[in-house]
This record gives sequence, C-alpha cells and structure tokens, in this order.
Amino acid sequence: MNRPIRVGILGAAGYGAGELLRLLTQHPAAQVASLVSSSQPDAPVAAMHPHLRGFYDGLRTTAKLDLAALLDGAHAVVFSALPHAVSGAAIVAVLSEAKSRGAGERIRVIDLSGDLRLRDEAMHARHYPDSPPLPERRGASVYGLPELFREQVRAARCVANPGCLATAAILAAAPLVVGDAAAVEGAIVIDAKTGSSGSGRQLKETTHHPTRHADFRAYKPLAHQHEGEILQAWGDPRGDRLELSFVAQSMDVSRGIFATVHLSLRTPSSSDELRQRYAAFYDKCPFVRVVADTPTLQDVVGSNFCDVSVACRGRRVIAMAALDNLVKGMAGAAIQNMNLMCGLPETAGLWSPSLRPV
Amino acid sequence: MNRPIRVGILGAAGYGAGELLRLLTQHPAAQVASLVSSSQPDAPVAAMHPHLRGFYDGLRTTAKLDLAALLDGAHAVVFSALPHAVSGAAIVAVLSEAKSRGAGERIRVIDLSGDLRLRDEAMHARHYPDSPPLPERRGASVYGLPELFREQVRAARCVANPGCLATAAILAAAPLVVGDAAAVEGAIVIDAKTGSSGSGRQLKETTHHPTRHADFRAYKPLAHQHEGEILQAWGDPRGDRLELSFVAQSMDVSRGIFATVHLSLRTPSSSDELRQRYAAFYDKCPFVRVVADTPTLQDVVGSNFCDVSVACRGRRVIAMAALDNLVKGMAGAAIQNMNLMCGLPETAGLWSPSLRPV
Amino acid sequence: MNRPIRVGILGAAGYGAGELLRLLTQHPAAQVASLVSSSQPDAPVAAMHPHLRGFYDGLRTTAKLDLAALLDGAHAVVFSALPHAVSGAAIVAVLSEAKSRGAGERIRVIDLSGDLRLRDEAMHARHYPDSPPLPERRGASVYGLPELFREQVRAARCVANPGCLATAAILAAAPLVVGDAAAVEGAIVIDAKTGSSGSGRQLKETTHHPTRHADFRAYKPLAHQHEGEILQAWGDPRGDRLELSFVAQSMDVSRGIFATVHLSLRTPSSSDELRQRYAAFYDKCPFVRVVADTPTLQDVVGSNFCDVSVACRGRRVIAMAALDNLVKGMAGAAIQNMNLMCGLPETAGLWSPSLRPV
Amino acid sequence: MNRPIRVGILGAAGYGAGELLRLLTQHPAAQVASLVSSSQPDAPVAAMHPHLRGFYDGLRTTAKLDLAALLDGAHAVVFSALPHAVSGAAIVAVLSEAKSRGAGERIRVIDLSGDLRLRDEAMHARHYPDSPPLPERRGASVYGLPELFREQVRAARCVANPGCLATAAILAAAPLVVGDAAAVEGAIVIDAKTGSSGSGRQLKETTHHPTRHADFRAYKPLAHQHEGEILQAWGDPRGDRLELSFVAQSMDVSRGIFATVHLSLRTPSSSDELRQRYAAFYDKCPFVRVVADTPTLQDVVGSNFCDVSVACRGRRVIAMAALDNLVKGMAGAAIQNMNLMCGLPETAGLWSPSLRPV
Repeated sequence: MNRPIRVGILGAAGYGAGELLRLLTQHPAAQVASLVSSSQPDAPVAAMHPHLRGFYDGLRTTAKLDLAALLDGAHAVVFSALPHAVSGAAIVAVLSEAKSRGAGERIRVIDLSGDLRLRDEAMHARHYPDSPPLPERRGASVYGLPELFREQVRAARCVANPGCLATAAILAAAPLVVGDAAAVEGAIVIDAKTGSSGSGRQLKETTHHPTRHADFRAYKPLAHQHEGEILQAWGDPRGDRLELSFVAQSMDVSRGIFATVHLSLRTPSSSDELRQRYAAFYDKCPFVRVVADTPTLQDVVGSNFCDVSVACRGRRVIAMAALDNLVKGMAGAAIQNMNLMCGLPETAGLWSPSLRPV
Repeated sequence: MNRPIRVGILGAAGYGAGELLRLLTQHPAAQVASLVSSSQPDAPVAAMHPHLRGFYDGLRTTAKLDLAALLDGAHAVVFSALPHAVSGAAIVAVLSEAKSRGAGERIRVIDLSGDLRLRDEAMHARHYPDSPPLPERRGASVYGLPELFREQVRAARCVANPGCLATAAILAAAPLVVGDAAAVEGAIVIDAKTGSSGSGRQLKETTHHPTRHADFRAYKPLAHQHEGEILQAWGDPRGDRLELSFVAQSMDVSRGIFATVHLSLRTPSSSDELRQRYAAFYDKCPFVRVVADTPTLQDVVGSNFCDVSVACRGRRVIAMAALDNLVKGMAGAAIQNMNLMCGLPETAGLWSPSLRPV
Repeated sequence: MNRPIRVGILGAAGYGAGELLRLLTQHPAAQVASLVSSSQPDAPVAAMHPHLRGFYDGLRTTAKLDLAALLDGAHAVVFSALPHAVSGAAIVAVLSEAKSRGAGERIRVIDLSGDLRLRDEAMHARHYPDSPPLPERRGASVYGLPELFREQVRAARCVANPGCLATAAILAAAPLVVGDAAAVEGAIVIDAKTGSSGSGRQLKETTHHPTRHADFRAYKPLAHQHEGEILQAWGDPRGDRLELSFVAQSMDVSRGIFATVHLSLRTPSSSDELRQRYAAFYDKCPFVRVVADTPTLQDVVGSNFCDVSVACRGRRVIAMAALDNLVKGMAGAAIQNMNLMCGLPETAGLWSPSLRPV
Repeated sequence: MNRPIRVGILGAAGYGAGELLRLLTQHPAAQVASLVSSSQPDAPVAAMHPHLRGFYDGLRTTAKLDLAALLDGAHAVVFSALPHAVSGAAIVAVLSEAKSRGAGERIRVIDLSGDLRLRDEAMHARHYPDSPPLPERRGASVYGLPELFREQVRAARCVANPGCLATAAILAAAPLVVGDAAAVEGAIVIDAKTGSSGSGRQLKETTHHPTRHADFRAYKPLAHQHEGEILQAWGDPRGDRLELSFVAQSMDVSRGIFATVHLSLRTPSSSDELRQRYAAFYDKCPFVRVVADTPTLQDVVGSNFCDVSVACRGRRVIAMAALDNLVKGMAGAAIQNMNLMCGLPETAGLWSPSLRPV
C-alpha cells in the first residue's frame, strides 16, 4: 500500500501512542515510519500494546526520532504523546532539526500535551507551572479543535491538540457562548466526569483498581488546568469576562468523558430552539452529533464522535457532551487535525461508529 | 432476645424492603413481626432476598399487614416500601385501621415513597401527578431528614422519608443555604449522579446490564421530581426564592449517589472557613462527616454515612455529598427516623462503617 | 461506492444485527440492502441502534425481506439474527422464495441462531427441543467455523454460524483434540465465562444491572446447549467418545468470553511444545493469535480476534481462549463466513485491532 | 464498653488490617489495643482507612507492637497482616518476647500470610521459596479453617489463616474429597476467579484500573502457591494421591472469589444426593450455606459466608463456592478463629448478611 503520509510518534509506550497506532491501522493514507520511546527502546509494537499483535510487524521503537524515514514521503507528520513539561521542548527540537536539514517546510507537528495550548502568558504560567514558557512556539501554534478553528488548523505547521475534558466542555456549550459573549449571564458551571484511561498508563493510587472500582469522586474542584483552554476557546483567553465553576470527577469506567454544563441565558429560550441553534452551529462538523435525548458514553466509546445535547427551561440551560477521551479527546482529534493539515478529507480513517453495547 | 420495637414492612419484595431487612438484622431493639407482599405472598424472606438465607427463618410474607402481631409490643412501627402513588394511601389505611382498633397512639409509620413529602399543594401536583393528593396526611407528616428536622421527627407519628438524590443534594449545601437565604446569589446547580439500584428491582431498559455497563448518561434535566423536596428542605417550599438547575445522571455502579452542588456566595469566603461552618452545622449529626478532601462512594457504600465537603474560590463554591442510596438515601434513614420516633439512640443498629475497598 | 455484495438482515433490532451493521460500515464490498424487523417495522437504523446515527441514512426496516433489492447485485447474502426456534424456519422460507424466483443459485444465507448447527438428530432434539427439526436444511448446512472448516464454508450455500461460548471452547483446545482422539485422556473440562450482551437485548433478571454488577455466578452446569456443537466440531457429533464437564458463568462485563479448558494428555508434554503445535495448527488462520502469556478480553474486545494460549505440566494442560462474543462469537464470524462464501479475502472489513484499554 | 479481648494488629496500613478494623467495630468482645505499621508510623486509623473516620478515635499506629497494652486484659490476640516472607518471623518474635515476659500462655497469634500454612517441608520450599523455613513454628501452627479443623483451632496458640482462593476451593469440594480419598477419580480441576483487592494495596500493573476494567485473564496456570494448602486440607499434604489442575483468574470486581471445581466420582450420583451430603457435612458450620441454585458474589460480599453448591450428572460433578476474599477469605476467617481460640461463640461479631444488590 502506498501511503503518502509518513508518521512519527514520540512517547510510543503510553496510551496516547497506543491509540494513535490503533486508529492508524485503519487510515488510508498514513504510514507509521518512526516510533520513539525512551522508556522502552528497541521494542516491537506488541510488547507495549499487546492488542496490536499482528499489526505493525517489523516496526520497533528507537531512542530518537528517525527524521530521514519521515522525510522520505509526501508528508511528514510528528505526533508527540510525551508528558506535559517534556513534550513542548521535544517539539521545538524536532522542528529545529528539520529546519537544519532544510525540511522545515515539509513537516507538520501535533502536540498531545498541554505545553503549547495557551496563548496567554499568565494563564500558561498558572496552569502549567512546570512547563517551559516557549513563548514563540506557543504563539505560533494553533489550538487544534477543528469544530471552532478548522481553517487555522488547515494552515498550521504546529497544532496543540486540546485536552480531553476541555474538548467535551467546549463543544457542549460553544453554540451558546462563542461569538455572543452577552448571551450568557453569571457563572458557567462545568461538571465533568472522566474515565481512568485519561490518567495515563503510569500506576497511581487514584487508578488502583480496588480504589477506583464502584467509586466516584471529585478532584481539583475550582482548580483544574483545563479552565484556561476552555476560556480561550470560548473567546476569553485571559478569563476577563467569563466566570467558570469547573470540577473534574472520576468514574469507574476506563474510556469516556461526560461534561455537563449549566448556564443561564439572558433571554429565555426552549430546548427545541436551542437544539436548532446547535444543529446549525455544527452543520459542517462531521464528528459532532446533536442528539435529541441525552448523549451516552456507549454511543461514542471507540469512535471519534462527540455527541451533544441541550435542555432549556426559561433562562436555565443544561448542555451535555460525551466523547471517548482517547479518541475525540486525544488521538482521534490528532488524526483529524493531521487530515486537515495534509489536505485529506477530515474523516479519513476515522469514520467508524462506537461499540454498543460496550 | 427481647426486642421491644415490633416492625411491619409493606412491599417486602423490593430493594427498599431488602435493605430494611438487611439492616434490621443488626438492630438491638427492633423485631420484624409482619412482612407484606402482594406480588410474592406467602414467601420466605430468602426467596425474595437470597443474601438473607439464615436470617429471619420462619418469617413469611402475607398479603395483608398483621396489625395484631405488631401491636403486641412496646412500639409498633410500619415501614412502607411500596411504590409512589400506592404507598401514601396504604399508609392512610394502616393508620385508620390502627385507630379503629384503639391503637392509634401506639403506632408509628414511615413512608419511603414520595407521596407524603411535599407540603405545598402545587408542588405535589407538579412532581407527583399520579399520586393521590391526601392533603391531611401530607400536612401531618414530617419530612424525615434528622439533620435538619430532628425534633420534629422525634415527635412525629408519620414520617415521609426523603428521596435519595434529594438527601445528598440537601446535605451538600444546607450549611450555606438554610437559615440565610440572602447568602447565596443566582441559581444553585445540582449535578447529581446515581447508581442503578435506585431505579428499583423492576426490569427497565435503563438498567439493562448491557445498556448500563461502562456508560454514563443524564435523565430528566431540569425536570426531576426531587426539586420540590430540596426547595422545601432549604426553606423555600413553593420555589419562590431559589432557582435550581438540577440534573440526574446514571453511573455504572449499583449503590451510591454523588451530588455536586455549585453556587455563588454574596461575599467571598475560603475552603477553610466554609469547612468550619460545615463542621459546626453538623456538629450533632453522627452520620454526616465533613471531610477535608472529597467524598467518595467507597467511604459510604453499605453504611448510613453521608460524607460532605466544600471547596471555595472567592465567591464560587462547589459542595459535594456522597451516600449509599439504599442506606442513608432510603432504608438506613428510615431506621434512623424510627430510632428517633421510638426514643432510641439515633445510631442504634446503624453504627457501622462502609466497605472499602468495595 | 460500488459494493457488489448486497446484504439483507433479519431480526434487525437485536444486538446481533446491531453488530453486523456496525462492522459492515467498514466493509469494502458489502452493502446493506434490506433490513427486517417485526418488532420495529419501518424504523430508521438509529432508532434501534443509536450509536449508528450518521450511518445508513435513509435505510429503514421493513416487515418482510426485500428479495428484489438483494438480487439486484453480484451477490445476495442474508443474515438471520432471529432467535432460536424462529430463525431456521425463516431461512428455509427465504431459500424457498429465492428458488421460486429462479435465484436459488445466487443467494447465500448465514444463520446466527442454533437451529441449524447440529447434524445429529438426537443431539439437536436434546439441545434445541423447541426448534423445528428441519432435517434437510440442517443436513445441508455447514458449521461456519473457518478455522476448522474453511473449504466447506467457501462452498456453502447455507452456513450455521457457531455459538459464542462454543467458538471459544473449540478453538482453545482444537489443536489437542481434533484429528487425534486418542491424544486426550479422561474428561475435558470447559469452564466458560461470558459477558451480558450474549444474553441479548431482551430484559432479564440475570441481566438486570443491580443483579449483575460486581457479581459472578454459574448457570446450567453440566446442561448447556453448546455441548453438542463442541463435540461435533471436535469430531464426535454423537458424544460417543469425548466426555465434557461444561459450565457457563456470568461476568460483570458486557462483551467478552473467556474459556478455560482443562484436560489430560496421554503422554507428557510442555508448554513450549504445545505452543508450537498451536502455532502450526493455526498457521493459516488470520484471526487466531497464539499468545505466550494468557489471553485477555482487552486484547480482543471490539475485534474479530480469538486469542489462545496453552500451559502444560506433565500430562495436565490448561488451554485458554478469549474473544468478543458479538464479533468473533457472532457478527464478525458471520462476516468472515460471508467473505469466504463470496470469494473475498477472509479478512475483508474485519482487520482491525481491539480497544485497549477498554 | 468492657471488651475482654485485647487485640494487636501488625501491618496496619494494608487491606487485611483495614478489614480486621472494619469488622472489629462490630465485635462485642474485642478491643484494638495496638496497631503497628512500619510504613505509616504514628498515623491515625482514618489516615490509612478513610472509611473508618469516626471509629477508633485516638488510636494511632506505632512502629512496634505494644505488648503491655495487649497483656492488660483477659485475652491477648495478635493478628499479623504483614506480607509473605515477613510475617512468619514477626510472629516468632512476638511469641518469643511474650514468653520472655512470662506471658507466653496468655497470648494467641493469627498469621494472615502463607508463611506458616504448610506442614510439609518440600511443599513449603516449593510454594514459598522466599519465606524462612521456621520448621518448629510451622509444625506447631494450626491451619485455621474451622469447617475442617474446629477443635484444633480451639486449642491452638498459633493459627495460620488460610489463603482466600484455597478456602473457596477447599470448601467447594471438601464433602466429596475429605475422608474418602477413593471416592474421586482422576484429576480435580480448580478453576478459580478472584477480585482485585486480593492483590493488595500496593500498585501493580495487573491492578491498574485501565488494565483491569472490563477484562478477564488467567495467571499462574498449573503453578499457583495455593495448591499446597488445598492438598493438605484435603488430606494429601505431600501431593501423593491427588492430582490438581489449578488456575487463578482475574475478574473486574474488587471483592469476591468464585471457585469452580470439576471432578469425577467413582460411582454415579445425582445433584440431590450430593446436596444432602453437603448439608450433612456442613451441618455445624454457621458460615457455610449450601444453596440449591448457584452461589453468587452478591450473596456473600461484605459477609463471612461461603456459599456452596453442587451439580452432578452421572459421575461428573461441578462444585462451586463463593466468598468475599477480604472476609471469609481473610479477616473474617481470622476473627472466626479468634472467637474459637478465646472461647467465644464462633459467630461473635460476624453474624451479618452481605450487601445485595452491591
């Protein structure tokens, strides 16, 4: 198969990379050419991701990106699935090396970490105190949420892939908040729930099975780092106008995010009217489905869909979004961005439904 | 064992009755004397509740309450675990029959349904359109939340046991809302999550295992019947002053409710200050524990505890409560009410910790 | 897209049909042309299977199969996902009608029920007492397990798709049992575990979420209907030579089967030796992966893989297999059979990895 | 409250100690007097076990056992919940120190680890190669399974508490195997399934939530260390007569063990006949319930019950047992042993049903 997009992945042993690899098995145009892992160098794919036995035979990790392998094609794309505070600098290094090889024009990079997401200096420092500032790179990156910034993504060299909780929250309420700041009154409540895979592959007390099973708990109430990018995506990058009440909460599921957004409109409306507004707003967005009832994890898990719905009584609104944190909240969104950056159909390799029942 | 409180249970085959029976195995003073089931008449306890094999040997359901068996003791208590729209009338019938036997003074009744909870006529009609109005009985019933109405419960003949979601929501924010209506500004958001056992023993599409497993979804946004009793418990029985944004949501757990309440104070505060206020407010409440971090289902499941916590940033507050819907949200609360109505220690038979890990 | 295989599905509202539809969204050559549901006639796909919103737009169920629509193409394939005792007769009717239209040669049928699986009269009567005998149709059907009967499937007009538990059990031990009946001594123990989706979409007490959550239990010990097809596939259709100890057990998962087979060899061996025998046996089987450690549900759920492994100490052997009951145990296997019957690559539309983590 | 049994616990931070503490809150006669943790010295109980907030106020861990506190009462009991390879030596040290204080007669010890379980030297060395041999202490210890060795437990100074998988396996088939070795023919298959809490509180890859959720897998097929004590309890301490095929398997539950034992009788029998034999065998065992259908985790989780059942067809038998690994498989069994060793009713503090639904 002649796949013209040659792909490299940094941080190959984690869940983000595993999901990129899973999804790319179905991609018509992308071929994984280089796989980098410092923790598991010289490892075959199946040693890190046993479900991929039988795929990617012959491919092994290296300790460093093989740029030559990438540049031997029509497109060269690098995904960084490295952790926060490490990823941004790795991206800078890749771009710099490519430039020194005279291939700066031909490479596209997509950062799955939070290092390059926030434009505002103070916001970045507040939410990512351990990340290097990298002001130029941050300034030149595009926030990779195609539903709001499709044209910018198409033109981008470097995309900062959105956070998973942020994606759900932003899409749940964007039709009410974006473009008409005066439409909403008072604080916007974002009550977000997440599965355990969002916490990554590293062992943690909060993702110890006996701790997590049959449990539900909150963490970081009023102090979560995704606040910054939600505000920015909604048009308030410094948090001057909008007030948020954000809480993240842990569910006993592995995949899935459900964001419930409560807000108050300045003028009364109805569920029907808002549903129409949502349908119009997301008209050109293949992966956002406006549903009449309520979104469910089962309708999105394993897929790149984000299902949204909205209920209204007078001025009060409850908007909801469901997505798979590893797909639309991470690797699927990254491939969606790659598609746009490389001039492919937005849905290439991603047009498949969720598992139901799961 | 000489147990002076003789107990009857209506609706013996459901989860509510099963949980009453489970908890009463540990009660030092109560003895189940009559068990009524129309769907499973003449059944031994273990046929309905197999985990109770070895307990209640010899006890069988009857089609009608055996009042004589109950009145043969120091106290006669009837729990109704019948469904909404049926339970209230059954309670009226029991009280009437007891009165006709000259035993009206000696009987106490506790209704686990929603039929008798709401004082306000319009609220009752709105939230329980299928329930008979029963205005006198509703007027004479006490809302059985000891943490707010302990003295009224002690004196009550007839207690309306609170709803499970309502209990969690009310207790999460009561220290901020009760007694000082002016302290809160704007709408109060109640984002509630519940396990499947709260939907009862009857088979339903939403509690079909393949539908519910690994899922999360919302239901009745801005339209849940527990709004009424929350407003009433917070001192606004007609909903004149407080505005709620309430949503119920389904988790893939069987037991457990987690309520997250978001609100805005008129004057800024801090987490520490509010935590102290909570500690003072619940000082005499053995089953409410104010925790520093966040409540968890694992710390309450199987027990009668409701754990609460509060976080504050400026004027924004997120308050949380966790409880077991079948214990503190239902059967445990009912026994707590029975203890108070019968002059026993509030904690009798209920002072045991949750299962952790569960 | 020109898809030359035109497909009809009977029993469109159930899980089997939902999974066929899910998988067929990814198939390069098949197109769903007719969808039949007696319980939900004239329904769009998303009304029955909400995760398929956005796929199959315009397709609606009918009360009867649209044979004309099917026969308008190079291949006509009918899947029956109807319940046991109904499906076999429906297949007969379809074949008969096609024949009367002179299209008997051009149609292929695949029955997902148990009605046509067993060759032996007595076995059929014992395990499917409610199914019609249909001796001619049963005799002319091929048991659709390509790993053992690939050439027969290629040539078949009518395939009886294997049971999900049976598939796992058969594949776990086939390399030890098939072709050398004398190799095994004593009874073969099959200890099988299954997820809830295998019980279907109809509400049942055993798949009530509060009943199933965090539970594990056995059912039909020494009395399960899949015994018959396991014996038949292993070469003992009347159960004359092999003795089984089979039990099915319910797990708190939705998808997934794990079969553990314990047996005794006549001559001692080792894990390594047997692993090599397995690798050779399954050499031409793309969907069976012999793994060194132990199979896991996470490595197969959502995919058409059946992972197997084997451990040996002296003469004792424990062989294991894991698969997704709705894919390799049902709809995926059916499509694999369709591919073979229509001369396509065996893996067409099915070559994708599982979700991990799930 | 005057509780005459003074208790010390070694290894206070783990799940075993947490469960001892949970259960002892309900014990009428035992009082925790000393709590030892090297990893968390000087910690209040709730810091290690947050669900115990409000219980054990004032009690803190120490780095070393406070023998004086224990010996200030009618009975002194030490539970060791330390890990394998550490626990046995700690027990020896405690006994030695007590003797040097002239209190050797007054102390009873119960070891929850595997260090002292196996009498046979070779078996011990094979299954616990890292444990010190401690031949005298091992020889003087009693295997604490009251259902088989009640009188020995009553008289014991030092009890080796059984393993959780072993308890389930032993009790499932004891009525068929114990006392009549000739009754069973061929290998005995033990197909055991366990929840994650049995793997302890330490973080492990196999108990990482995204790894364990919705999964099922096997481990240590034909190589599990509990084989030794099962053989010993069934009367074959050196493994001379009985042949086992044992596999342990991981479920996506936190608490619970389900053991399925398949075996062949020399002479045919029936389910009814065997059920009667079971009922007679366990007649004096309050915590073993012989059930007609199949055991379930929900009927035992949180309780000290072990439910067993048996099915028979000709000579083939499938016997099953379910229990809570932290209660009847660990801490509950330990308290049951304590009760016997101290002359209390066997059920003291343990007579409570499981949570259902859970």
